[in-house]
Amino acid sequence: MDKSILYKIFTDPIHGFITIPKGIVLKLVDHAYVQRLRRIRQLGIGYTVFPGAEHSRFSHAIGALGLMQRVIHSLKEKNTTITRAEHEAVLIGILLHDIGHGPFSHTLENTIVRDFHHEMMTLALMRKLNEEFDGALTTAIDIFTGQYPKTFLHQLISSQLDMDRLDYLKRDSVHTGVTEGSVGIDRIIKTMRIFQGNVVIEHKGIYAIENYITARRLMYMQVYQHKTVLSGDKLLEAIFHRVRDILHEGQNVFIPSPSLEYFLRENPSAKRGLTNTIIHHYLHIDDNDVLLSIKYWQEAKDPILADLSHRFLNRRFFRTSFLRKRLNQNDLEILKESTKKALGKLNLPSDDKAVSYYLFYDKLVNEAYRYENESIWILQDHTTAVEFSRASETGNISALTKAVVKPYVVHLKDVNIHNA
Amino acid sequence: MDKSILYKIFTDPIHGFITIPKGIVLKLVDHAYVQRLRRIRQLGIGYTVFPGAEHSRFSHAIGALGLMQRVIHSLKEKNTTITRAEHEAVLIGILLHDIGHGPFSHTLENTIVRDFHHEMMTLALMRKLNEEFDGALTTAIDIFTGQYPKTFLHQLISSQLDMDRLDYLKRDSVHTGVTEGSVGIDRIIKTMRIFQGNVVIEHKGIYAIENYITARRLMYMQVYQHKTVLSGDKLLEAIFHRVRDILHEGQNVFIPSPSLEYFLRENPSAKRGLTNTIIHHYLHIDDNDVLLSIKYWQEAKDPILADLSHRFLNRRFFRTSFLRKRLNQNDLEILKESTKKALGKLNLPSDDKAVSYYLFYDKLVNEAYRYENESIWILQDHTTAVEFSRASETGNISALTKAVVKPYVVHLKDVNIHNA
Amino acid sequence: MDKSILYKIFTDPIHGFITIPKGIVLKLVDHAYVQRLRRIRQLGIGYTVFPGAEHSRFSHAIGALGLMQRVIHSLKEKNTTITRAEHEAVLIGILLHDIGHGPFSHTLENTIVRDFHHEMMTLALMRKLNEEFDGALTTAIDIFTGQYPKTFLHQLISSQLDMDRLDYLKRDSVHTGVTEGSVGIDRIIKTMRIFQGNVVIEHKGIYAIENYITARRLMYMQVYQHKTVLSGDKLLEAIFHRVRDILHEGQNVFIPSPSLEYFLRENPSAKRGLTNTIIHHYLHIDDNDVLLSIKYWQEAKDPILADLSHRFLNRRFFRTSFLRKRLNQNDLEILKESTKKALGKLNLPSDDKAVSYYLFYDKLVNEAYRYENESIWILQDHTTAVEFSRASETGNISALTKAVVKPYVVHLKDVNIHNA
Amino acid sequence: MDKSILYKIFTDPIHGFITIPKGIVLKLVDHAYVQRLRRIRQLGIGYTVFPGAEHSRFSHAIGALGLMQRVIHSLKEKNTTITRAEHEAVLIGILLHDIGHGPFSHTLENTIVRDFHHEMMTLALMRKLNEEFDGALTTAIDIFTGQYPKTFLHQLISSQLDMDRLDYLKRDSVHTGVTEGSVGIDRIIKTMRIFQGNVVIEHKGIYAIENYITARRLMYMQVYQHKTVLSGDKLLEAIFHRVRDILHEGQNVFIPSPSLEYFLRENPSAKRGLTNTIIHHYLHIDDNDVLLSIKYWQEAKDPILADLSHRFLNRRFFRTSFLRKRLNQNDLEILKESTKKALGKLNLPSDDKAVSYYLFYDKLVNEAYRYENESIWILQDHTTAVEFSRASETGNISALTKAVVKPYVVHLKDVNIHNA
Repeated sequence: MDKSILYKIFTDPIHGFITIPKGIVLKLVDHAYVQRLRRIRQLGIGYTVFPGAEHSRFSHAIGALGLMQRVIHSLKEKNTTITRAEHEAVLIGILLHDIGHGPFSHTLENTIVRDFHHEMMTLALMRKLNEEFDGALTTAIDIFTGQYPKTFLHQLISSQLDMDRLDYLKRDSVHTGVTEGSVGIDRIIKTMRIFQGNVVIEHKGIYAIENYITARRLMYMQVYQHKTVLSGDKLLEAIFHRVRDILHEGQNVFIPSPSLEYFLRENPSAKRGLTNTIIHHYLHIDDNDVLLSIKYWQEAKDPILADLSHRFLNRRFFRTSFLRKRLNQNDLEILKESTKKALGKLNLPSDDKAVSYYLFYDKLVNEAYRYENESIWILQDHTTAVEFSRASETGNISALTKAVVKPYVVHLKDVNIHNA
Repeated sequence: MDKSILYKIFTDPIHGFITIPKGIVLKLVDHAYVQRLRRIRQLGIGYTVFPGAEHSRFSHAIGALGLMQRVIHSLKEKNTTITRAEHEAVLIGILLHDIGHGPFSHTLENTIVRDFHHEMMTLALMRKLNEEFDGALTTAIDIFTGQYPKTFLHQLISSQLDMDRLDYLKRDSVHTGVTEGSVGIDRIIKTMRIFQGNVVIEHKGIYAIENYITARRLMYMQVYQHKTVLSGDKLLEAIFHRVRDILHEGQNVFIPSPSLEYFLRENPSAKRGLTNTIIHHYLHIDDNDVLLSIKYWQEAKDPILADLSHRFLNRRFFRTSFLRKRLNQNDLEILKESTKKALGKLNLPSDDKAVSYYLFYDKLVNEAYRYENESIWILQDHTTAVEFSRASETGNISALTKAVVKPYVVHLKDVNIHNA
Repeated sequence: MDKSILYKIFTDPIHGFITIPKGIVLKLVDHAYVQRLRRIRQLGIGYTVFPGAEHSRFSHAIGALGLMQRVIHSLKEKNTTITRAEHEAVLIGILLHDIGHGPFSHTLENTIVRDFHHEMMTLALMRKLNEEFDGALTTAIDIFTGQYPKTFLHQLISSQLDMDRLDYLKRDSVHTGVTEGSVGIDRIIKTMRIFQGNVVIEHKGIYAIENYITARRLMYMQVYQHKTVLSGDKLLEAIFHRVRDILHEGQNVFIPSPSLEYFLRENPSAKRGLTNTIIHHYLHIDDNDVLLSIKYWQEAKDPILADLSHRFLNRRFFRTSFLRKRLNQNDLEILKESTKKALGKLNLPSDDKAVSYYLFYDKLVNEAYRYENESIWILQDHTTAVEFSRASETGNISALTKAVVKPYVVHLKDVNIHNA
Repeated sequence: MDKSILYKIFTDPIHGFITIPKGIVLKLVDHAYVQRLRRIRQLGIGYTVFPGAEHSRFSHAIGALGLMQRVIHSLKEKNTTITRAEHEAVLIGILLHDIGHGPFSHTLENTIVRDFHHEMMTLALMRKLNEEFDGALTTAIDIFTGQYPKTFLHQLISSQLDMDRLDYLKRDSVHTGVTEGSVGIDRIIKTMRIFQGNVVIEHKGIYAIENYITARRLMYMQVYQHKTVLSGDKLLEAIFHRVRDILHEGQNVFIPSPSLEYFLRENPSAKRGLTNTIIHHYLHIDDNDVLLSIKYWQEAKDPILADLSHRFLNRRFFRTSFLRKRLNQNDLEILKESTKKALGKLNLPSDDKAVSYYLFYDKLVNEAYRYENESIWILQDHTTAVEFSRASETGNISALTKAVVKPYVVHLKDVNIHNA
């Protein structure tokens, strides 16, 4: 049978032509659960710093699926047995790996639903789809949850070196214009093979892995943890906290999206699992609900909510200052006082409560590579695989793998951080 | 003074580093009117066909501004006199050239406001900004409207070969993955010069222009007038017409966005100018208002609205069929009957009114290059400039410049167009 | 069996990873006949105009082989039957398609051997290899010469749209930096299929073909027929003619390469076929022999040879002037007189003979696309294929396909062409 | 004055348009000393491993000049004072920085002239040019030799982070297809500034530097010290040693290039400086002389020379084996015996002398970054600059900066290295 009848072809700015099998995979691509990802930006508020970072989780999902096609093709050529059913299942797994994400992904993850992690939702939605498709996703779910015997299929979806990361690092690097974060996907995929049931990298691929780890580190530093991104995240959270606080005080706020209103008013927790009500409303919200609401909140009666919303939509973000050492209680008090003064000058309320929307002390952790639990394994001599940081010729490549912890403060422009 | 104090640098996936002068230009970039463009996709519903086409009119505006910086730099090196004030004004002009666009740009242009063209709004908003900035945009407005004596500044913003087109052709080509649509921006900018007050291309640039015209034609055929894009456009319009018709019949529809509700209920016309009320609400709506509304309309009581909205969000678009010749009245009647039958099978209303949301007959016109009014001029011998299609060595390059008219029908899958 | 044991992987700046089957194909890659192509530049003297155009016919041959792998893979997926033996043979055919080229390819083709075309040599060498490999190239030769029943295999090697052209257009475009000449290889290969035994393009690929033809035209104009390339070609030929004339007059010239000396002294003709002596010496010469000789000829006693050689190595080329109309005998006389004067000023001999090395009148012909003999066919409706220029929607795309004839003169800087 | 009259524009596959000032800089570009670099490959025998690595030292010189233009432009915008004369001089310096290179650069550096380093020749040639151009290169020479007061100008030509390295890393990465070796030139140049007279990197550029160092390391491992490159280098040296030994024994060898013959017969040393005779002949030789000679040496009477030459031109290189530890005398004896046996099987002489052309024991050292003498400095707080490996947030980025020493053996395929 002619391939063009069996496949649909997408063109992608990152990977060129992507071939998607008709049948269940294409049906899932067109399903509302997946199409919803078109309305959730991959980099959350990253687009406010990098104008080109407007890509969605949908294009990432399609891209990761494209890479999965390529790695499966390559592994088969190296005589790894992958049945037709497994091939389809692993495509489904990678396509759906992010469907549990909500508006502004990580930023609002715990603000929208308490005690929540998006992977809970991903799994819940996969199960709903499995019902809808009469059990056709069972293998995909087993692979996704790590219960399928061929572990390497899970590793291709989720590990230190999976198709998810390869796609988003490259895609984010291109869209942000941070070209140094570019990853040598072709070489990595070409040097992947299965050894004793696990994904390993052939020895000649070791420098590509070094490069991958440095590139990843660079993307964290330059993009994911960019100062302005950190401050925008805090601003977005503050807006949501403010709305909740206003509602809690019994006052009213206009919320154009009924489903978002549900989360803001009811403040549900996922501790006892995801109820059908939570899932129903969760599926209804995306970046649009948030942005539309903030647009109207610019005109809220509450001066703090109006100010925060106006700041968000006019790019008047707070400042982020990285610190050389942790702050003590006294330092924090000084910053709070300074924030109160600044709020006063802006004709905004300046009590302790108000300060909580305008001053944030936090730290960030960047672990480029952890070798305790998940690792990248390098094949040596066809008979042994060695953990990457031990295989590397530089005695201590582990330099790159050490966690870097940075305390920081997000604050109003007029608050002088050096006084603290 | 150090440049880094005077400029802000953006990274862009298409053009790399873009340098934006602080002062009024950067203030305008951060202004709500311009930031609003972040929420309007450059290619309307194009992203439903090309997963990577998620870029907004904002990143296009920044990119076009970047190109303007480069062409101004190049022209100055060729001894064209451009004062500091003119330089700033032309940057403002290109930055703001699209601020009048509304949700889903061209598709809904006349659906949202009757008798409207987005350039009316662009000009209205420029004037409001001019007031806000105490007349600092006067020169920019004069250039934009073609009233400034140095015509070439207007041509750089709006002509057959302006920074607007150069940016969007390249940007759309990259994001859609249609690499053949790529335009040789560097060479075009390097060969531009001012001759007798007008933008011309040096003779050695003539092949780059030929390439530009073919690339543009290709982008029209492969992207802007892609079959699925055409059918998605019709679907989106049908949704809006349906809502208006329901409201007109006195029934109710939930519209989450108050400003969008204004346009749907009041159905204002721009014939007598843009009132403050129109402008106020227009500034409040963007793609988000539309998408959020359609999300809720999937659950509308009205079966047609629910069906159309569900189709839109689950990518169950209509079919587009290009025709070899125009349809006559009889052909159309056959198609209408066939549509009614198809609607019946879907348990949807199947009267004439219903058909009007499910069957569309239209034609598209693709003029790659018009040489009547606006032209591209090629410099010959340092003393004369010749209109491009006459300068080209191929006797009749004008082949590429002829308008192509294609009639087409957008219809339900079950309607057999070959019967007509 | 593991693919890495069966294949050798090259990395290529244009196409990325290229997979070459071990066995006869890889043996041929490493054979001296093919390795010799490393010493013949793809663009002849093009590198003197475009600094990056230093690539050889070897890297082109590898690249074209890489494209052949891809198109065969794609055609097989579309259910075209291609046996393992045919697959190997067509790879051999494309790998060897240029082995008959000599130093500076087209420029010196008829200067080195009279009555010669490089394809004669290609075929002679293929036959020698066939003997050496005990008949293993028989099918490859049949395909190459068009005698194999499956015509499409020949078309993939040699036609209006073969892997040879796709590779060199793209490769030359990248190396020269003439980015507008870039061809959408991926789309062309994806839309190729076999129809009634011939290579055709699916209808959706029609714009990619239009783009291909414009790009090709642009490469001719900007690169292959660049003014300075034309003048460098004439200079190179003049050097060889001068050496032959000196030898003919019985004087001596030092020729470091014995095989090149054979051709210069013996002036062999290929009219009666290629003798073993011709083949032996031909295989011994490449760009190096020519460049090394010219280096020493800078110090020749003969003032004309020394001047021409010095010009070549110090980039003091002649001028090229394109003419609006053909020259008549009188015009030519004026130019000759003017050349004589110029030579006198340079203290060089200035007789008629001398003029023949310093003044050239010629014309160039650029046919982007010929639709008489070879054509590109577009598939319509799954049942008919239409010749491209008739399939195109623009009534007369044939504009692009008309031959352009340009007369030109190559002359000394001091010869004023406008006097003629 | 119009820029197009003052500049000549080259297109480059790596950097796009490069603008070269007319006058002395362009005259030097066209000078025979610089044009000679067109005939010396940038990566020596690297092209035998990476088919695309055919670029010459000439295109590298032009590219480095292009980068110098950009960095000077950027530094001036940051208010660094660079006079017009200094600008010209630093362009000349970078253009000429490699003119002292001979055939196959580093490989044959000490084989062609004893006690020689190519920088001696570079300086000698610069001085000759300075005479020819009446002292116009004096400042350029002072900058090149580090004697000019503004040290940063020297650093831009030669330091840990100069335009030379930025160009060749990027250029080699593209031509070899080792995309992971790509360096973020734009960001590095944008973040360079002059601080207390030295080139430093602004703090925000620190990750680009990390990336630069990893990329450089990767290029060493994957390209410059590729196994096959190492073995090809040894083969090339062996050929030259064999010719010298034959001549020394009083036998004859045909050497087509008289200047190369001079070096092979006379075996001159540079210990007492570079004589005019050495310089004269050195300027006459390039890669062509070597390749042409090897071509004829395939047919030498001497069986060893014929075998080595045949191996070189037919890519039958030796094997390279990296060792886990150094070899002792006994190990070496075993390898020698094994080599003798292998030579015997090949019907080649198998005495100790013969072994010296077929067995090599060496080690390679890869220092990605040395922080003792030359360093990269990072600007912190506008008042202090810190050495890079101390500025980096990862405690011990110095991991990347440690020298890696690897012993290796180059040997015949039939010599089993594991026996040693």
